[in-house]
Amino acid sequence: MTILGVDPGIATVGFGVLNADRNSLKVVKYGAITTQPGLPLASRLLVIERDLTSIIGMFSPDAVCVEELFFNTNATTGISVAHGRGVILLTAAKCGVPVFEYTPLQVKQAVVGYGRAEKQQVMDMTRRLLKLQSVPRPDDAADALAIAICHARSSTSLLREYM
Amino acid sequence: MTILGVDPGIATVGFGVLNADRNSLKVVKYGAITTQPGLPLASRLLVIERDLTSIIGMFSPDAVCVEELFFNTNATTGISVAHGRGVILLTAAKCGVPVFEYTPLQVKQAVVGYGRAEKQQVMDMTRRLLKLQSVPRPDDAADALAIAICHARSSTSLLREYM
Repeated sequence: MTILGVDPGIATVGFGVLNADRNSLKVVKYGAITTQPGLPLASRLLVIERDLTSIIGMFSPDAVCVEELFFNTNATTGISVAHGRGVILLTAAKCGVPVFEYTPLQVKQAVVGYGRAEKQQVMDMTRRLLKLQSVPRPDDAADALAIAICHARSSTSLLREYM
Repeated sequence: MTILGVDPGIATVGFGVLNADRNSLKVVKYGAITTQPGLPLASRLLVIERDLTSIIGMFSPDAVCVEELFFNTNATTGISVAHGRGVILLTAAKCGVPVFEYTPLQVKQAVVGYGRAEKQQVMDMTRRLLKLQSVPRPDDAADALAIAICHARSSTSLLREYM
């Protein structure tokens, strides 16, 4: 199963592609879509849609996974990120790929085994689970890989339970 | 000039199409795109994108106008609406129509002449300016028409100033 994790944003959209089966997780590709701060919002959304469509075309994922947004201190950032997230969900749906949404708690639980884990712990475990030399950069790519791991573990958990 | 005003949302996206020149504002069409509450978010965004694309195809607007989102009491609603707004901006840009964004204050100023006007005053003035018998329903459609009026008045204001 090929899983595409996406970390939503406007300036930077992290992505991570994994091949997952019951016994292994293998990184295929990770990186970030970036858009220029000077561009109008509609143009930046166009870039995100175009690049995400080509990433989906390139790796033909079986699932696209995106974290749910929750409100913290910065409401303005949340609004901005939600614009990008809407375009990401739309793009996946237009490409006919099933979309899965996970809460930050579910991601932490799946990656670290503890829902209140710190960001750094999630990054370290992401690196270890994927057998990488260092934590993927930018952070947005590491976050995207963590969401993909969450989906891999959620969708194979029953199988692992009974072996 | 044909102007399409859009009032963003997920359950209901209001739209209003106006023909505007220096001396007149004429309603061409108004209404709302609606999506089913039971559908996954990605599917609802697909409906919005599909219907808005066909509205743009039908009326060939010279401009698409959308109000800016500001944070009030309900952050969760704001996040949800921003998903829809991202898809609306993207769809206009994909159709090659210029996108204009106005603050609520600018809309009130343009329609009522007073930036702190109440919602009901904006609705009443929208009805009067467009020579309608009653305030357009649903509210989302009236809001969309108000945004279109704001654009009509903004983009022709210099001409009116010197006549």
